[in-house]
Amino acid sequence: MLGGSVYGWIDKICFDKNGLIPAIAQDYKTGKVLMLAWMSKESLLETISRKKAVYFSRSRSKLWMKGEASGHFQTLCELRLDCDNDTILLKVKQEKGVACHTGRESCFFQILNDDKWIEDEAIIISPSKMYNSDK
Amino acid sequence: MLGGSVYGWIDKICFDKNGLIPAIAQDYKTGKVLMLAWMSKESLLETISRKKAVYFSRSRSKLWMKGEASGHFQTLCELRLDCDNDTILLKVKQEKGVACHTGRESCFFQILNDDKWIEDEAIIISPSKMYNSDK
Repeated sequence: MLGGSVYGWIDKICFDKNGLIPAIAQDYKTGKVLMLAWMSKESLLETISRKKAVYFSRSRSKLWMKGEASGHFQTLCELRLDCDNDTILLKVKQEKGVACHTGRESCFFQILNDDKWIEDEAIIISPSKMYNSDK
Repeated sequence: MLGGSVYGWIDKICFDKNGLIPAIAQDYKTGKVLMLAWMSKESLLETISRKKAVYFSRSRSKLWMKGEASGHFQTLCELRLDCDNDTILLKVKQEKGVACHTGRESCFFQILNDDKWIEDEAIIISPSKMYNSDK
């Protein structure tokens, strides 16, 4: 059932030589860029069928539903593909308002300022609370 | 002059085994995600010094200043790094309001709708005009 002609739309997508494609997650309401992760064909099909972001973890070589450990799921609102068909943009509703494993809204909390990285986002939930809340 | 201790901030960045890092360009004002491209250490340093986005073209294996052929430069407003230090987010002023080589504001003009990709962004400038205007 995964791939092939049943899913004609997926055949347009250019996965890289490892079978992956970068996927940007953006808050559907505020437009804030939350994170970038990677998707395989299988994780993309799971994302569509569950209406929740499912990525492929390159370090663990397995599918990873965002929020499976923390409860911070990303509900899919919109799925976009770029002009080269090699990058995906997900517009999502970020459950609990925190995408980053550090407890911040966005993973992009380091800003370059005078040759230094400054952390300019507050920690909304402490990581220890995030990863104990659903287990 | 490129790399090394002169640029301590760059040593924090995790480039992949090809020496590249994905870089998301987002409109600094509207929050629209415009494109994703790749940067090498050298292109990132050029981006900082010129205050304009300079990417690394994987197909041509060379630096590429966005807008060098079209005049559609991306003026750098803000540079961010994610929690894993392996993705960059650029907030940019998109000159002429068009980031995509197809003449659209954003490269992410294909939206998945009922198992089909629909193009939902207008062409603002025809590509033939884009690539003749500055040459």
